[in-house]
Formats: sequence, C-alpha cells, structure tokens
Amino acid sequence: MTPNIDLNSDLGEGYGAWRMGDDAAILGIVSSANVACGFHAGDPQVMLATLRQAAARGVAVGAHVSYPDRVGFGRRPMDVTHAELVADVIYQIGALQGLARAAGTRVTYVKPHGALYNTIAVDARQGAAVIEAIRAVDPSLVMMGLAGTPILTQAAKAGLATAAEAFADRAYTPGGQLVSRRETGAVLHDADIIADRMLRLVTEGVIEAADGSTLTLQADSICVHGDSPGAVAMAARIREVLLANGVTIRPFAGAAA
Amino acid sequence: MTPNIDLNSDLGEGYGAWRMGDDAAILGIVSSANVACGFHAGDPQVMLATLRQAAARGVAVGAHVSYPDRVGFGRRPMDVTHAELVADVIYQIGALQGLARAAGTRVTYVKPHGALYNTIAVDARQGAAVIEAIRAVDPSLVMMGLAGTPILTQAAKAGLATAAEAFADRAYTPGGQLVSRRETGAVLHDADIIADRMLRLVTEGVIEAADGSTLTLQADSICVHGDSPGAVAMAARIREVLLANGVTIRPFAGAAA
Amino acid sequence: MTPNIDLNSDLGEGYGAWRMGDDAAILGIVSSANVACGFHAGDPQVMLATLRQAAARGVAVGAHVSYPDRVGFGRRPMDVTHAELVADVIYQIGALQGLARAAGTRVTYVKPHGALYNTIAVDARQGAAVIEAIRAVDPSLVMMGLAGTPILTQAAKAGLATAAEAFADRAYTPGGQLVSRRETGAVLHDADIIADRMLRLVTEGVIEAADGSTLTLQADSICVHGDSPGAVAMAARIREVLLANGVTIRPFAGAAA
Amino acid sequence: MTPNIDLNSDLGEGYGAWRMGDDAAILGIVSSANVACGFHAGDPQVMLATLRQAAARGVAVGAHVSYPDRVGFGRRPMDVTHAELVADVIYQIGALQGLARAAGTRVTYVKPHGALYNTIAVDARQGAAVIEAIRAVDPSLVMMGLAGTPILTQAAKAGLATAAEAFADRAYTPGGQLVSRRETGAVLHDADIIADRMLRLVTEGVIEAADGSTLTLQADSICVHGDSPGAVAMAARIREVLLANGVTIRPFAGAAA
Repeated sequence: MTPNIDLNSDLGEGYGAWRMGDDAAILGIVSSANVACGFHAGDPQVMLATLRQAAARGVAVGAHVSYPDRVGFGRRPMDVTHAELVADVIYQIGALQGLARAAGTRVTYVKPHGALYNTIAVDARQGAAVIEAIRAVDPSLVMMGLAGTPILTQAAKAGLATAAEAFADRAYTPGGQLVSRRETGAVLHDADIIADRMLRLVTEGVIEAADGSTLTLQADSICVHGDSPGAVAMAARIREVLLANGVTIRPFAGAAA
Repeated sequence: MTPNIDLNSDLGEGYGAWRMGDDAAILGIVSSANVACGFHAGDPQVMLATLRQAAARGVAVGAHVSYPDRVGFGRRPMDVTHAELVADVIYQIGALQGLARAAGTRVTYVKPHGALYNTIAVDARQGAAVIEAIRAVDPSLVMMGLAGTPILTQAAKAGLATAAEAFADRAYTPGGQLVSRRETGAVLHDADIIADRMLRLVTEGVIEAADGSTLTLQADSICVHGDSPGAVAMAARIREVLLANGVTIRPFAGAAA
Repeated sequence: MTPNIDLNSDLGEGYGAWRMGDDAAILGIVSSANVACGFHAGDPQVMLATLRQAAARGVAVGAHVSYPDRVGFGRRPMDVTHAELVADVIYQIGALQGLARAAGTRVTYVKPHGALYNTIAVDARQGAAVIEAIRAVDPSLVMMGLAGTPILTQAAKAGLATAAEAFADRAYTPGGQLVSRRETGAVLHDADIIADRMLRLVTEGVIEAADGSTLTLQADSICVHGDSPGAVAMAARIREVLLANGVTIRPFAGAAA
Repeated sequence: MTPNIDLNSDLGEGYGAWRMGDDAAILGIVSSANVACGFHAGDPQVMLATLRQAAARGVAVGAHVSYPDRVGFGRRPMDVTHAELVADVIYQIGALQGLARAAGTRVTYVKPHGALYNTIAVDARQGAAVIEAIRAVDPSLVMMGLAGTPILTQAAKAGLATAAEAFADRAYTPGGQLVSRRETGAVLHDADIIADRMLRLVTEGVIEAADGSTLTLQADSICVHGDSPGAVAMAARIREVLLANGVTIRPFAGAAA
C-alpha cells in the first residue's frame, strides 16, 4: 500500500474588488480547498467562483469558518459567547453548503480559521461551540485541527471524524507544538528542505523539531499557501517531491468531493 | 371543501443587541415565517432562535433574502449585477438552510425582501437572477411574489412553484397594484375593515380597490406585520375573523414545515 | 460653593431601522451625552440627529468609541493591535467631530465603550493606544474612565485631562471596584436608594460598599441609563434628588458644550 | 506665466489584509490624493498610513467619499435618501479630517467616488445632499467633479469652490462627456498618446474627441491611476511629458496641503 496525504490550502479569500492569492494555481496543487465563508474573507460571488473551480478540478471543499471580523481577517482573538459561536459557525457552513450545491460539489469538512483555529486548539469552551455547530448542521463533516492538540480528541469524543493538520512551512517544538511566530526560525523558507520534511512526515510519521530532535507527528493533511508567487512555488515543490517518491495526494478520509 | 389561506410575516429581524417586532406573539398567529438572512437584518443567533421557535410552533419557514444593505434595512434599490445577485441569494438561502437543519426544520420558500421584492416584481433582469439562485440551490423551493406581478409568471416559466402574496393593510388600485405609499390612503389602519377585506379575498377571491370597484385577486398568502403592538393586534384580528368564518389557516402548498 | 456633578448617558445607539433607548427623554436629564460613533452602534444619520438634539438642549458631547464589533455591540473583548486601536479611535472621534460641527456643537470628551472601556481600565497597552489616539486628534479632549482605575492616572501622566466616572446602579466592592455582574446584587434597582447613594457620593465623596463599609470615591460624572422606561425613571429620580438637595448638574470641567 | 495642473489619484484603497494599488509609487507622481474614507475602501489604519505618506510627500488630500457599499466597492448606484447621504458624507469627511490632523496634514477637497461620483454629475437631488454635507462640515472644502457636468455649477451656486476633473485614459464624446465604458475605445491604453493628449489639454485647453473633432475642456485636475504596474507607468509618463514641456504640477487652487 502506497503512502498518501492530503494537501490543503486557504482559498476564496478575495472580497469584492480585492483579490488574495492565486487560487487557480493552487487548485492545481492541492487536494482540499478551505473556502472562506464571508466572515473573515470571501463574498458570495468569490465563494461561488472558487467552488466551481474546485468542483472542476476535483478538489475537496472545506468550510473555513471564522470569527466575524473582516477588517481583522479573523486573526484577532475575540471573546464570543457559546451561543454566538455556535450560530456563527452554522451560518457559515450553511452558506457554503448552499453555494456548493449550486456549484455541483459539496462541503466535506470544516477548518476553523485564524484566531478561532488557534483558540479552539486549546480552549475547550470555544471548541465545544464549534463541535456543537458541526454536529447540528451536518455530523458527517470532518473537523480539521492542529495535529497533536486537544481539540481533535474533544471532537472525536463528541462523535466527529477528525483530520490532523501539519504546517509545511512551520518549525515544531520538541513537544509537537508550532514554534511561535514571534521566535526566530518559526517560519521556514527553503522549498527543498520543506519538501523533504514533508516527505519524511508522510512516509515515516516523524518530523525534525527545532532543537534537532525527532518528533513523531500523525498528520492527515498538510497546509500549504498560495498567497504569493513564492508560496505557490513552494507548494508546487512539495507536491512534486511527494509524487516523485510514490506518495498519493488525495483528500483525507471522508473528504472526497 | 373549506377555504384556506396562509398568513405570513417577517420575523427574525433583530440584529445583535437590537430587537424588532414581537416574534413570539406573531408566531402564534401566522402559518409562515419569512426569516431574515443576515443581509438586511438577522444575525445568526437571532436567526437560529427564530427558527427554533418556528419549528416548535409548526410554522413554515421562508428565506427573506435581501440586498446587502443592513444600515438601509434592504429598503434601498441597488443596481447589482446578475452574478452578484445570484450568489448573494444562494448564500442567504444556504445560511438559513443550515440554521434550519440545526433547529429541526427546513426552508420551504423564498420571499425577497424590501427593495429587492419591489424591484423584481417588475424587473425581469434582477428577477432572473433570483430565480436562477433558487433553482441552483434547491429547485423545490417555492418563490413568493406580489400577487398579479410578472415575477410570478417568470418564475413559473422557469419551473419554480410560486405563491402569490396579498398585503392585508394595503390599498389596491383597480388594476391590482398596491397604491403607492406616497399617496393618501395607501395604508389601511382599521383592523375590522382589514379583517373583513381579507375574509372576502379568501372566500370570494376579490378585494375592493381604492376607487370602490371590485378587483379579482388570487392570493396564496396574506402578509401581516408584527413590528408594533397595534400590528400584532391587527394580525390577531385577521386570524380570528378568518377562523370564525371557517377558513383554515395553513402554509401554502409546498410550504409545510 | 454648592456641590456639582455631571450626569452622563449613552446616546445615539440606534442603527438604521433599529432604535435603542429614549434619547429625547434622557437628554432632558443628563448634562453629557456619550454619542456612539458607528463602530458598536450609531449610523451617521442617527449620530447627526442625536448631536442636533444635544446641541439644542445644551448637553455636552463625548465620543463613545468602541471596538469594531457592531453585531456584538462592542461588548466582546478583542485582541487588537496598538496601531489598529489608535487608528480606529481617531477615525471615530473625527467622524463625530465632523457631524458635531454640522450640528453646531463640538466634541469635548471621549468615553470608551463596553469591552474597550473595561479593558483599558486595567490594560495599559490598549490604554496607551486610546491615549495616543486622543492626543493625536485633539489633546484638549477629556478622557473619561472608571473612577479609581489605573487608566485615569495613565492618561493624566500622558497630559490628558481626565474625568472619573461612577455608575449609579452598580454595587461597589470595599476596594472601590464594581461588583462583577456575575454576582448577586451587582446591579441595584431601587431608584430611591440609588438616588440617595448618588447624593451622598456627590456631597460627601463616599459610597456604601457591598459589605456595608464606607468607601471614598472621587467622581466627576455619574453614568445613568435610558434604555428602558424604568431606566429613564431612575435617571429622572437621581436628577430630582440631586437638584432638591442643592446639587448643580452640569458638564464636568472641560466638557461644556 | 507657466501653465500648471493638478494630478490626482485614488489612494488608501486597501482594506484590512487586502492591498490595492501601489500607493507609494503613485504618491511620487501626483499632487493630490483622493483618500478612501472607509465606506467603499480604506480602514482607519490604511487611511492613517496613507495620510502620513501624503503629508511626507507634500501631496494634497481629498476625501474620497462613497455610498456605504464595501463589497461593491461603491460602484453600484444606490437610491439613498437626502438625509442618509448628507450624514454619510459628513461622517466620512470628519473621519478623514480627524486622521489627517493626527498625520499632520489636512483635508482640502472632496471627490465623490464611483457610483456616487457618476450619479451626482447629473442628479441634482443627490448632488444637493453632497453639497449640503460639505457646507455643513467645512465650507472651505473644494468640491471636485467631472469637467463639464452640472454638479460643478450646482456646487458653485451653493457657494463652494470647485475643481473640474478630466480623465487621462478616457475617450470623450464631441459633447464633452466620457464615452461609456460599454463602448469600444472608451478606455485609452497608449501612454505616449495619453500623455500628449494631457499636455494639449493643459496648454491649449482642448482635447480630441472620439470622432476626431476638437473639444474645449476646462480642467483643474487630471485623474491618473495606480492600481496596476501599467497604470503607474502611464501616470509617470504623463508627469514626465508635462514637466518636460514646462508644465508645473501642483494642487489646484485651494487644495494646497
């Protein structure tokens, strides 16, 4: 049996007259598209166009749900109530599901975005709201979260299928956490090194931590970026190295379009 | 066979800390709830609460879709493109469908709101966009429109089921149009007179026009309001008179919850 | 010399079709109006109307600046950057100043709203951003803050005039802090008791804490509410008792219209 | 006396994480910056940064006011009321004035944006609202409008100073109107031809119309674009040709920073 992995990226993050990222290029690289749902980015027209392209390319679709903070791009922690968060997440998933039907595809997973992603990785209260929302709108949706964090266990206990995510261009602590962006070396830049790290992650289940130690990391999906020409080239390089080494790139279990 | 009619009202029109109308009271009167979808009113939390109440009361749910104009409450004509309007309408319907699933009910019809409602009654271009959106997201959704206007024919030709709407508190021209709100006597205020007019509309299919002539009007649903104590009392009076005269109040065909 | 005090209230908190509070009634009671600036409430039309009424009644005007969170009414803590907060506060003050000029009045103070108010009371980082914004747009603006909290000292050190605010309907801890709303007895409801507490605060500079002890509290302004008929009646009662006991109600130093 | 002209461009049109145009490059070319005020583009942080750069470069600042339509970038005609438009325009001007003070510069003119610009060029009702707003907030502000259109006369009659604007890259009808963008040849692309047209406009007061006839056109300012590398190059070429032929590029009368 050949090894396989999912590659995911954030897409549909334009808004009105504003563009962000090269969606067309990245859709030729990834197997899963995290589509913005209008709360941090993505207006309905951009979302629909993105979904049509994802459908045409056979790329799986996830709801990239966010706090309601467009000017802050969903990157600012917000102390929302349980009821607010439940309803906000359902609204966004439902909106994307409606547009997905119109585009001839369907939403198969949910990946919280930005500050919400980081918060629920460790905050069981907000995590419970996201889980409740997913279960209420469609319990077959897979919940994507940061590999090794409590949210994945929490979601699984609540009956959701989960997908563990690794970040291609980020350094890891020996304990399996992402090195904070405030620290030097937190973000990696060499495409060849990154591609080799991801190959090893997929084939051996380990990654070299920032201190040189070897870390065991189970990942179902690898996040790559498309928001700059350099990012697209790096994503393409990762794909190329994986394919050249016999890895199959396909949506994670449950996320096929 | 006893006569029957649907009573509908706009609900879920609060936003954040702001309330509008007495939803609880009006849900005891109507058979169909036009639920705001976030573009002119209604945040996800308000929408979800409204849907739960509608589900509990057995009231049918429609998507009250709007131009994206919260500060103008969707009442200002906007010259949107076809593609913008298609995507905006799908987004709103999808969002409400998601919340409806979470609330244990479903969306059965679409009623455009405010300026969009008035525009598409006679503007085939924007009407086509709304029709395309409904067909794309769920062709079984019934489209509600102003009784006697071209949009109903346009929607039917496109394969949609339609529901013709009459307004309880509005005067009609001899030609079957609403008297403009700018003219004296456009809005009626006497609950007893209004209730009797609606009874005659339901049982005889006619309504007295502003010039005293008798107008034939086919209506599947009557719009009542809940945004003031007086409005709620008027709606209750209409219901009472209809029931007392053997009329069954129930969702129009296709809109049962 | 007779004692004097300022009474302030939050005004102009409608938005589009939504109303909040009885602004006309409360403008007959208070000497200072905290006018919403569009970020948590208040659209330009509401703001302008409020300013015209304040000008006509001789009520001083303050900028009630907020996080950008309309659906959350500015009540949700947000982790904004220094640069974001500085610019957001200047923008709101400037907008209100423009509308105030058009209404024939001027902005004389700044009162942060909701979660921003609570946060900067104790968070020197966000406090510094608000202070920097005020100094940049108009250093003669008085900064209002919670009596007894570090933000007032911080603002004074930065060269701003300050006004210490007490809350008429809130219980205080023996240490001079507001009893948390989560605790029983945090909010007081008896208008006569509240009016007597405020009279004592103004004339003696003390207030009875929740444990019955006597607390020294220096206040330049007392916050009253207008968001319900009961709140307006309570505010009127406070005013009545103060006036009957020889207290002059007028804007705090620096805030005269 | 040497001929002179103002070059203006739309700036500060980013929003949150989204960028638009090369503001730094265009600020080295133009003498006046139309700064977005938050309604179609521009968040407070972007606005403040743009104002600081404009101040540093000695570029005059105008308020680029818009309908409240961020997702539509202010390009969609909206049927707003007089009172709404007056308040919206004052709010935007005031906000920009506040940020300008913080940046050490000041707002000297107002240029309506997009659909509002086109509408008021010929719609005296909405034009009157914009004029009323400018007069209410600061009657010394110059109003920029399309050269040859009624709004300039209307504004002058109301006591405002005005600036007539020509578009560098647009074809003109023999009657002096812009050729509609829906027609072939409406937008010009050859930088050398455009630069020569602008030189002739400035030095002779004429421009060749689309039918080859010569049109007299009085212009105080020429609009150039910065939203693509090609646009910036074109703007630079216009500046170069004008300077090489002895034309002084400076803000129009009344708009000096």
